Amino acid sequence: MKYILFFLFASFISTAQITKEQLNLMPWPQNISLNDGSFVLTKNFKLNITGAPNARIFTGATNFLRRLDGRTGLFFNQGFITGLNEVPGAELQINCVRSGKIELYEDESYLLDVTPNKITINATTDVGALHGLETLLQLLQNNSNSFYFPVSKISDFPRFTWRGLMIDGARHFMPVDVIKRNLDGMAAVKMNVFHWHLVDDQGWRIEMKKHPKLIQMASDGNYYTQEEIKNVVKYAADRGILVVPEIDMPGHGTAILAAYPEIGSKVVNLNVNSGEKGQQLTQVQSYALERNAGIFTPTLDPSNPKTYELISSIFDEVCPLFPGKFFHIGGDENEGKDWDSNPKIQEFKKKHNLATNHELQTYFTMQLIPMLKKHNKELMGWEEIMTKNMSKEAVIHSWKGSNEGLAAGKSLVEAAKGGYKTVLSNGYYIDLIYGVEDHYTVDPMPKNVTFTDEEKARILGGEATMWTELVTPATLDSRIWPRTAAIAERFWSNENVTDINSLRKRLKTISFRLEELGLTHLKSKESLLRNISNNQKSDALLDLSNVCEPLKGYTRNSGGTEYKMYSPLTLFADVCTSDASDALDFNQAVTNYLSNKSIENQSAVVSYLNKWIKMNSDLNVLSNNAPLVQPLLPLSKSLNDISQQLLLKIEKKQNINATILNELLEKCNSKDHADVELAVYNSLKKLVQA
Amino acid sequence: MKYILFFLFASFISTAQITKEQLNLMPWPQNISLNDGSFVLTKNFKLNITGAPNARIFTGATNFLRRLDGRTGLFFNQGFITGLNEVPGAELQINCVRSGKIELYEDESYLLDVTPNKITINATTDVGALHGLETLLQLLQNNSNSFYFPVSKISDFPRFTWRGLMIDGARHFMPVDVIKRNLDGMAAVKMNVFHWHLVDDQGWRIEMKKHPKLIQMASDGNYYTQEEIKNVVKYAADRGILVVPEIDMPGHGTAILAAYPEIGSKVVNLNVNSGEKGQQLTQVQSYALERNAGIFTPTLDPSNPKTYELISSIFDEVCPLFPGKFFHIGGDENEGKDWDSNPKIQEFKKKHNLATNHELQTYFTMQLIPMLKKHNKELMGWEEIMTKNMSKEAVIHSWKGSNEGLAAGKSLVEAAKGGYKTVLSNGYYIDLIYGVEDHYTVDPMPKNVTFTDEEKARILGGEATMWTELVTPATLDSRIWPRTAAIAERFWSNENVTDINSLRKRLKTISFRLEELGLTHLKSKESLLRNISNNQKSDALLDLSNVCEPLKGYTRNSGGTEYKMYSPLTLFADVCTSDASDALDFNQAVTNYLSNKSIENQSAVVSYLNKWIKMNSDLNVLSNNAPLVQPLLPLSKSLNDISQQLLLKIEKKQNINATILNELLEKCNSKDHADVELAVYNSLKKLVQA
Repeated sequence: MKYILFFLFASFISTAQITKEQLNLMPWPQNISLNDGSFVLTKNFKLNITGAPNARIFTGATNFLRRLDGRTGLFFNQGFITGLNEVPGAELQINCVRSGKIELYEDESYLLDVTPNKITINATTDVGALHGLETLLQLLQNNSNSFYFPVSKISDFPRFTWRGLMIDGARHFMPVDVIKRNLDGMAAVKMNVFHWHLVDDQGWRIEMKKHPKLIQMASDGNYYTQEEIKNVVKYAADRGILVVPEIDMPGHGTAILAAYPEIGSKVVNLNVNSGEKGQQLTQVQSYALERNAGIFTPTLDPSNPKTYELISSIFDEVCPLFPGKFFHIGGDENEGKDWDSNPKIQEFKKKHNLATNHELQTYFTMQLIPMLKKHNKELMGWEEIMTKNMSKEAVIHSWKGSNEGLAAGKSLVEAAKGGYKTVLSNGYYIDLIYGVEDHYTVDPMPKNVTFTDEEKARILGGEATMWTELVTPATLDSRIWPRTAAIAERFWSNENVTDINSLRKRLKTISFRLEELGLTHLKSKESLLRNISNNQKSDALLDLSNVCEPLKGYTRNSGGTEYKMYSPLTLFADVCTSDASDALDFNQAVTNYLSNKSIENQSAVVSYLNKWIKMNSDLNVLSNNAPLVQPLLPLSKSLNDISQQLLLKIEKKQNINATILNELLEKCNSKDHADVELAVYNSLKKLVQA
Repeated sequence: MKYILFFLFASFISTAQITKEQLNLMPWPQNISLNDGSFVLTKNFKLNITGAPNARIFTGATNFLRRLDGRTGLFFNQGFITGLNEVPGAELQINCVRSGKIELYEDESYLLDVTPNKITINATTDVGALHGLETLLQLLQNNSNSFYFPVSKISDFPRFTWRGLMIDGARHFMPVDVIKRNLDGMAAVKMNVFHWHLVDDQGWRIEMKKHPKLIQMASDGNYYTQEEIKNVVKYAADRGILVVPEIDMPGHGTAILAAYPEIGSKVVNLNVNSGEKGQQLTQVQSYALERNAGIFTPTLDPSNPKTYELISSIFDEVCPLFPGKFFHIGGDENEGKDWDSNPKIQEFKKKHNLATNHELQTYFTMQLIPMLKKHNKELMGWEEIMTKNMSKEAVIHSWKGSNEGLAAGKSLVEAAKGGYKTVLSNGYYIDLIYGVEDHYTVDPMPKNVTFTDEEKARILGGEATMWTELVTPATLDSRIWPRTAAIAERFWSNENVTDINSLRKRLKTISFRLEELGLTHLKSKESLLRNISNNQKSDALLDLSNVCEPLKGYTRNSGGTEYKMYSPLTLFADVCTSDASDALDFNQAVTNYLSNKSIENQSAVVSYLNKWIKMNSDLNVLSNNAPLVQPLLPLSKSLNDISQQLLLKIEKKQNINATILNELLEKCNSKDHADVELAVYNSLKKLVQA
């Protein structure tokens, strides 16, 4: 009898019915049905590929096997997959009708069918099949002894065709291995456009064989070789990802002008009387690479034919590196101050009937269109390029919103209604360290606008933008992940998939699994904390980091000069992330407690308060041998002080003087220390006011 | 009065006299003197370079500033250093007499002088100056509020001119970023030779433009492009490091033969009667990339002129990528079985009066010398190449020892006495996961041998060898570091620097600081543990990993077939390292306790025993949702069981049955679980027997 019971129990575990709520899929698929039973993995698990796919499926399938083997430790027998139909009897059958193209509107759909003995992925293209393999990896379940996939059927396809991530390699150079691991991250959450911001005031990052000055004078030696770029484009294509390069012009032009000052707009007036007629002389301004963050005046001279010669020649060298259809020319934040003060440019405006600098910039941008068309490329630019004379062929990248004093995504609506294809980035500025909910609730398709089908179709999708003024290769991943997985879901899944609690729960597992791709969003934290603690073992710093978030928006580097491009980004604010984990948990505990003051709920709140009191004490000890901990002590003290009072209030039921309590509370609302804020302030406030 | 006291106290802290024992320098410098006082760092700290150095010093000095700024968070004003004498009044003055060459016997000495207001580094070459900057970084001290360098004078130079690290990029491909961060690690501990093992049975890793088959058929797509190789060589040279490439021949030849089977030695006898005279026919054997580890028979055919044509042509393409003087041709572990069974080769031996396969191999190797000389390169090979007819120009790489049934480093002595330059690797096989002490106590200069000065001079130094049969990019660093820092000290410092306790103490800090170079030896552990625990939070796994060490020597992959080159290396044995930290601490606690059974000493032992009992309980809970934890439970149980009995013995003073105790103890000596061993066995045994 004992044995029968044991058998029943084992059997019960291995086939325990999984519910949809237990699955940690992201982006959530369009259709999923679960059934009883499971496909149990063994070391004999093999896969087979049929149909007429692109060879990228072999790389993808091999990587799939290695990742699954790394998770399960099963020592699969199958090594490298290099051809079609190598193992006809394999348990996982992947069939692709045809080779996928790396371009918009490609068929990315797939059907995944898990039965107890067989798994099939059917897709029109290998790109769809790769998505299916990522979903299968996310489906993995385990009990205490084995790993399995639940019996299920999934049919899936993307809602938007443009699901992008931009990485700025100009402000802080991001080496190829950093780019590659993030491409792996993108593929894992089914994103398909990598927008590579390659040039800005702070650096030119493309090896130029015909214009070596750009590298010699404007890169600090940090640039991508052409071979590396081709290699990244191939790596991306192997993962179904299109690469869109950006050279930002005519503003954000300091790097170009550091190499080619003669095409700059700034003139220096020499206030001397010289020459026969005593006329005022001007001379070419010299430019140095920008080391600060912000909006700067250097801009190309749109009146100078040499400007267009250079750009055209640059395009001739750069365009062939990128087989995709789109080329982003920036076009943002050009204030035109140097245009206003340049008499030659003023004359040019008059001569060409260009009333404003906007019109002048449109003139400039329009010259680029045929240069790109020559290479079969469409011009894309930030929303500033959308002026009345701009070609309808241009793609408008919508980025402004409340921070710029505009309605969020205003330009997106204008573009779609005005006949332009458009992509939304407003709401997806992940460099600003807002919480994941802020991004997740933004939809590329505006809710309160009536669009025709044609207008709707012009909204290609969205793109998360990772600007790197305050980010190094060591911290980049922790700014991108896991939040970008939530944004990817917004771009892929049905618009009704909006449950934030479900998102948060799934995101924990997704974030953990992204580590297997080499992403460092979790492990860099531990390494940076060792530096701050001066290698002293303590949980206190980690505990503090789990209730602090970096200052949001543009406040951390107000004025753009506190942090230069070579300033240390190894500090506490660099360790902290948005969505501070303990702050989220504490907020839940407070909500529970305030709705029901049970002993259990009270204890959850109290244990946090006690934890922070101990943390403060430990941090003080730690700081004796760690100068980098000193700036954190005021934060920790504030949290300690309010925690002590709240304990008296909650546990001892003492009446605490409201003035004192509020004073202590407001100290927790400070943004004056270590460029972070206490993310528990609002929860503490609820307790104070309760 | 209060203020005066405060001032005195502050002053006392900032100038607290440091002793040599407090310094965490590695390798320990040849001469060091400390004096009262300190140089306190501020954000105004700047450096200046004078003399006639190579431009590498600018990169090195800029990196120095960034690393120091990353540690201190001071926001130095100085950004990029690009030229001589940019800041004549700077506090750190670096003077180099001339440009350093990246070759053996270069002057690597430096003088470092820290005074309260000024620091100077004087060196003949920039290579010496770079060493001085690394020493200065290691000198960094702090109190609670500031960072400073102690007033000191250091004069330093290396004991051996060859201080090498070999990385095997053939068994498991190690991408360029992995190589680069390890070059940074080497530079941090003043190593100067990177031996790059680029070809073996499991893969050919060099892009070949003239022989693309080597890449197409023998790399699985994992290889270094020629541009990448040049880039690595430049990166190494910027850090004072010479790169020595290796193409292993004629044995370890499977990869070459996978592409060019026609120059292989194996023939298949076709036992058919065909042809007019019914003669026995042979045909060319085909070869497939090896997936297992071990010694294999595929070897090049030394009787075939095409073999030499191909090698010569390969050298013509590969040699120009490596400007250094040495080219390693392997030459090891060629058993010649395929030579014995090939009639054509037997005929060739007779014809050329080559009595043995050794003589045949010497014939082969001698053909390579002029091919390399054409490119101004000296041939280097593993000790097997040293036969009586081998040219004295060859460099002998000594690697065999007790594992091969020979006296340790026997060939090193024979080489030096026989007129060959030689390098020692026996004793430095870091892939075998022995403790740091085992390597640290091996000296490249044999102790009990009388050498002439000339013979001594032939012993160039030593080299740590990192073979990668069981190592991936995720675990490589944890196998190299920190142990290689200790080996680096053996190669650089005075032979009398041998205190193992001092080494262990300094190594903790060195290991921590190596992280700032991007090395992952610490942070990968946390990431791999998350995978094993299935993302469940628990200290239990970490605790177990701190008392376990991977099976040593060649026992983990006995037979070479358990782990294939694509097997998962994400397991518990991959997380564990040599010199398990808690095992070392526990051993000290046991030693202390057995010499003095004070309450304090007893408590140190007891707290470990209690920790392991709790760990076992926690691991059992963890295993309910983590299949990869299951194989560890027997280890944890063994430790739990003996700990419980020892607690009774030590705390309760109970007499435990010796048989029971010994049985439980011997269970802790098992090597049957999860490819690791409990590193506390010997300490437990002391307690049992006490």
